[in-house]
Amino acid sequence: MTAAGSRNNLKAELAQFKRRRIREEANHLFYRQGYEGTTIDAIADKLQVTKPFIYSYYKNKGEILYDIARVGITLSSEALERCLAIPGSSWDQLKLVVDEVTRIVVQNQEYIVVYQREEKNLEPEQARAIREQRSAFDHRLAEVLASGEAVGEFRLQDPPLTATTIGGMMSWVALWYQPGGHWSEAEIITHIIRSVERLVAVRGRQEVPPASRPQPEIRK
Amino acid sequence: MTAAGSRNNLKAELAQFKRRRIREEANHLFYRQGYEGTTIDAIADKLQVTKPFIYSYYKNKGEILYDIARVGITLSSEALERCLAIPGSSWDQLKLVVDEVTRIVVQNQEYIVVYQREEKNLEPEQARAIREQRSAFDHRLAEVLASGEAVGEFRLQDPPLTATTIGGMMSWVALWYQPGGHWSEAEIITHIIRSVERLVAVRGRQEVPPASRPQPEIRK
Repeated sequence: MTAAGSRNNLKAELAQFKRRRIREEANHLFYRQGYEGTTIDAIADKLQVTKPFIYSYYKNKGEILYDIARVGITLSSEALERCLAIPGSSWDQLKLVVDEVTRIVVQNQEYIVVYQREEKNLEPEQARAIREQRSAFDHRLAEVLASGEAVGEFRLQDPPLTATTIGGMMSWVALWYQPGGHWSEAEIITHIIRSVERLVAVRGRQEVPPASRPQPEIRK
Repeated sequence: MTAAGSRNNLKAELAQFKRRRIREEANHLFYRQGYEGTTIDAIADKLQVTKPFIYSYYKNKGEILYDIARVGITLSSEALERCLAIPGSSWDQLKLVVDEVTRIVVQNQEYIVVYQREEKNLEPEQARAIREQRSAFDHRLAEVLASGEAVGEFRLQDPPLTATTIGGMMSWVALWYQPGGHWSEAEIITHIIRSVERLVAVRGRQEVPPASRPQPEIRK
């Protein structure tokens, strides 16, 4: 997300770094003691900075929450577009999406949980903006499903509803995954990919006419 | 849940009814304005009763939250045991479970959302008790999957992980379902049943040796 390349950029990079660290510590506190139970003072204490330091990066606590709430969906939407830009069959693309997004969920678990819990504390227009971003994600995923269906690669009945379910299967991981727990990140990602494969009933590649889609060029 | 049959039970039934109404209104307030943002006064106001009336049924606000948090998993566990007591193939049983539990999720959406959001406000031992109940549910579901796998009816790799995913697919509905929205309760239940059918890769009935299981007796 850093616009590198310019030689006067260190100042901007540092500002971004500080903002990210504030968000990170705030998120950790919101996760453990709730949004209402966390003061700007507590966040400043944690980082050993002054309260005005925090206020020079965030107008108020609500703005930090908004920034936190956007993490999961912003990273996921970026990953989705990145994966869809890679040439390949619908399943090649969907598999990449599921792999990357599930990894994002696992690695940003606390952000996603805090969003789920604290959405009610967002300003209505902030909550709406995030819901729209989430629904755009589902919509885009449904397009992938519908186009895989159209070329006979997937077999499914309701692409939008199936997209919502796939989104849910990935997001749900945030609500039960435990770092160092019974299942590793890799096992979980593999499981979700296999589950999605069954859900869309991917047909064997030999059944898809090769001329109907560009040759996959993934992972050179 | 009412123990009917005894003729002196009206008093107990009324007490139970009042408790349920308190829980219902409290849940609705917690859903709209959060647990921390809701006072016992507000709950009493809503029901047009006095505060001592509330306290004669619940020791404190935390006890109401605990009662609310248990709704989804208690109803689901009861449904699970009820369905598993009906003779039938593993898929007959699993299909019934998915049908009933998804319906419970749709019809008790606000309870489930409040639990997800407010779990952090439960006493540690209360939170633990609910998590154990949820994990017993997943464990029982995994047994159904494993036994369907053993008789060759299902094809799956990791029954516990698949059970968690199925639980997630059902629970996830609570986080996006809108009464009167795009999809009806029936459409959602049908979609989840079909999704689970694919996830466990149910084999055609003709492939299951009929002698290996009792004849289904569902829906006479």
